[in-house]
Amino acid sequence: MEKSMEKRYTLSILVQNNAGVLRRVASLFARRNYNIESLAVGETEDEAVSRITVVTVGDEYIVEQITSQVAKLTEVYRVEIMEPANTVFREMMFIKVKTGKNNRAEIIEVANIFRARVIDVATTSLVFEITGDAKKLKAFLELMAPFHIIEIVRTGTAAIQRGDNRFLNRPVLATNRGG
Amino acid sequence: MEKSMEKRYTLSILVQNNAGVLRRVASLFARRNYNIESLAVGETEDEAVSRITVVTVGDEYIVEQITSQVAKLTEVYRVEIMEPANTVFREMMFIKVKTGKNNRAEIIEVANIFRARVIDVATTSLVFEITGDAKKLKAFLELMAPFHIIEIVRTGTAAIQRGDNRFLNRPVLATNRGG
Repeated sequence: MEKSMEKRYTLSILVQNNAGVLRRVASLFARRNYNIESLAVGETEDEAVSRITVVTVGDEYIVEQITSQVAKLTEVYRVEIMEPANTVFREMMFIKVKTGKNNRAEIIEVANIFRARVIDVATTSLVFEITGDAKKLKAFLELMAPFHIIEIVRTGTAAIQRGDNRFLNRPVLATNRGG
Repeated sequence: MEKSMEKRYTLSILVQNNAGVLRRVASLFARRNYNIESLAVGETEDEAVSRITVVTVGDEYIVEQITSQVAKLTEVYRVEIMEPANTVFREMMFIKVKTGKNNRAEIIEVANIFRARVIDVATTSLVFEITGDAKKLKAFLELMAPFHIIEIVRTGTAAIQRGDNRFLNRPVLATNRGG
């Protein structure tokens, strides 16, 4: 597999609400030694249905193969490689920063520029929550890097199609090319 | 298993960055027919380490058993049942709402109260992003329910300990009781 063929793909998968399907989806990646960059499982507007969003970096052909195999799982209602032009991708990140008297104001100033929200305040630390696309989170981390970052927690990317259509209303399998 | 014994537990798991460990963690839940309410996998401050946050509803004894088994996996650096008193739990949710000329302003007003952000605008729909704990997201959904909700995407809960300590710096396995 040539490195130049590798791109980032985001798969949205609507599934019956159970741990078994997650195990099977993870297996399809693990078998090919494919790393999952991020994965998010959450409830949907239908409480019997969960949505799994997987971000992976790999070869287009293999990602399409995995997608076809995911589609064949009995617990899967729908799977699609999300088309970047038509999708909003965002992630939530927590960042815990060590603070002292001298840099507290400066740290908060950087956070304000990025509209990060303070979610925990302690004598010697602050925890911020920030949401945005990968680029924004990367820029925020770069500006925070000179300070002492204690810990980072990320939810993994969530993806939603632009416009008024509903994911489940479209055909069961569609492999639009992701990028 | 008595229903009255069932509670919600959030597990944080620091793992080596690969799909294999996700498969094994999901297996431990699936084997007991335990549903995963939400799961989020994201990168951490160390690029070789991912953090998995799992929310499950179940019996304390069984959740502690699963936690012990997770701790034994070779790819797992650390696992803990997060203690609610000492943890910030938040989730990101996208909600796509159908809009008409008559209700657009009203929908935006509700969103503003909850500090939801508009992330996509179309002629007949709006997509909002909102972050918060389960209670806040539930309240927002209740106020949006009278409108036409097209779609909901949730990232799953992310959890971070309050204060200035770092998750990895503490002992490898600790099973503080979650609630």
